[in-house]
Amino acid sequence: MTRNRFRAVAIALAAVLAAGVMARGERAQGERRLIIHADDLGMSHAVNRATFEALEHGWVTSASILVPCPWFPEVAAWAKKHQDADLGIHLAVNSEWTGFRWGPLSGRGAVPSLLDDQGYMALLEEGVVQRARPDEVEKELRAQIDFARTSGVNITHLDSHMATLFRTPELFAVYRKLADSYRLPQLIEVYGERGGAEAPPWLANAAKTALVDRVVSIDPGVAASDWLAAYKKMLEPLPPGTYQLIVHLGYDDEEMRGATWDHPNWGSAWRQSDFDLVKSAEFRDFLKAQKFTLVSWRELAKNKKTM
Amino acid sequence: MTRNRFRAVAIALAAVLAAGVMARGERAQGERRLIIHADDLGMSHAVNRATFEALEHGWVTSASILVPCPWFPEVAAWAKKHQDADLGIHLAVNSEWTGFRWGPLSGRGAVPSLLDDQGYMALLEEGVVQRARPDEVEKELRAQIDFARTSGVNITHLDSHMATLFRTPELFAVYRKLADSYRLPQLIEVYGERGGAEAPPWLANAAKTALVDRVVSIDPGVAASDWLAAYKKMLEPLPPGTYQLIVHLGYDDEEMRGATWDHPNWGSAWRQSDFDLVKSAEFRDFLKAQKFTLVSWRELAKNKKTM
Repeated sequence: MTRNRFRAVAIALAAVLAAGVMARGERAQGERRLIIHADDLGMSHAVNRATFEALEHGWVTSASILVPCPWFPEVAAWAKKHQDADLGIHLAVNSEWTGFRWGPLSGRGAVPSLLDDQGYMALLEEGVVQRARPDEVEKELRAQIDFARTSGVNITHLDSHMATLFRTPELFAVYRKLADSYRLPQLIEVYGERGGAEAPPWLANAAKTALVDRVVSIDPGVAASDWLAAYKKMLEPLPPGTYQLIVHLGYDDEEMRGATWDHPNWGSAWRQSDFDLVKSAEFRDFLKAQKFTLVSWRELAKNKKTM
Repeated sequence: MTRNRFRAVAIALAAVLAAGVMARGERAQGERRLIIHADDLGMSHAVNRATFEALEHGWVTSASILVPCPWFPEVAAWAKKHQDADLGIHLAVNSEWTGFRWGPLSGRGAVPSLLDDQGYMALLEEGVVQRARPDEVEKELRAQIDFARTSGVNITHLDSHMATLFRTPELFAVYRKLADSYRLPQLIEVYGERGGAEAPPWLANAAKTALVDRVVSIDPGVAASDWLAAYKKMLEPLPPGTYQLIVHLGYDDEEMRGATWDHPNWGSAWRQSDFDLVKSAEFRDFLKAQKFTLVSWRELAKNKKTM
């Protein structure tokens, strides 16, 4: 066996092995499917402006909405005019900024265990883990889904803001229950911390129903000038499979800087860098050259049903 | 009697008459006291930025806060560092913008009669008049005052966002009850639609307790270039008394334009014009030349107690 033939067989074998544990939505072996997903829609006008633009141009294929936020009505109005847009609910039990925050949609009196000392949803994931009652988490998250539906959003999927619902078996049970109850696909990974081999034992079983193999997203510590290079480095070596690339879009303006001033990570400049990335010709050319197939949650769910 | 002497006597008589029905806080006859009051603090980052700057420089003497809004935590943090700032509660049962809105602080389930079809506080005053139950109005407004106090705001007064609480005897009764219950001064006018001779009969009696003779504010229809002239024209002829000049401060930026895009009146450009006005040397020179005495609600209340 020549060295080249050995390499070809090894690659084929790796693809077969990968296909064996691939997400249920996956069909074409060797294909790399990518949801480009914008989180936090509804949070602020700067996030809405950037995300609407990205969805309208196809620079991202999906987004999920923070329903309790003040700019949700702008999202609802946009969603009514864009019924084909791929929009999920970014189920939220945290309100992480300092000077700009939100309370539970279902009301402070209805879900007191979701409040911190300042009367808003907890700043950090730990605040939820320590205090939130699962029945109140469920009540609040149902209110968010119901409110979005009533407001005219054609919901394609569910995911978890700050991944808080993956933090304990009880929170994850609520997340699973909501997907069953509303018959909506939800973000769970075959690999990665949201369900797979890297997850705690009580979470690992969930991988059987995952539509996504792995979530990929940029880590803190990258200079703005290295943004594109970091994304290329992250995406290029991915084996065949279905991926969700999470981006955080926004304009680096006064509103966004005011909201995120004490959060350099996932803050205003970060979101401008992500927005500049997805709209850049270089990034889109890279995705084409790498033969990524861009998909939405609606398409993943459809493929799953026809499997 | 010469023409000049007749004029002098007439002016003196007018001053005596004016003094007779003057607001209770008034002491020095002939003096014109002016609260320069910024409404809607907390609504957005653009409003907060402009209003903090104006309060810190003394360009305005007072402001009132929209507690249910997402940027309230920024106000609370600022208020803790500025305990002498004159800050009231802008009691809110309306959420008037289209794409950017707020629900009741006490929760949607707690005060359902305060919600419109979209699940937010009513867009217009009529929505409150038609649907709101007075007991739910009281519940919500107590929640707003209590939340601000708990958050560290040293509350100096109460007023009514969009003057909605002056629309019916039942709403006004709630407004009166809150001032009594919390022992806080509240905006009522001797003249004008908020309590005096121009008000409906059930409101007119309230003038006896008013600390302000009249609210003055710019009307729609003024070009930005005529802004200063319009304020001069409004303020110059005022007789001795105590006035509240209401201004709406903000920066005309993307956030503010996004929030107010379909409201040319009291919208983004309007707020920039008001902000430019209060910070201008010309306006401050005018106030000095006209011998207006700038006062705060805290000072008005103190004077009332020593009367």
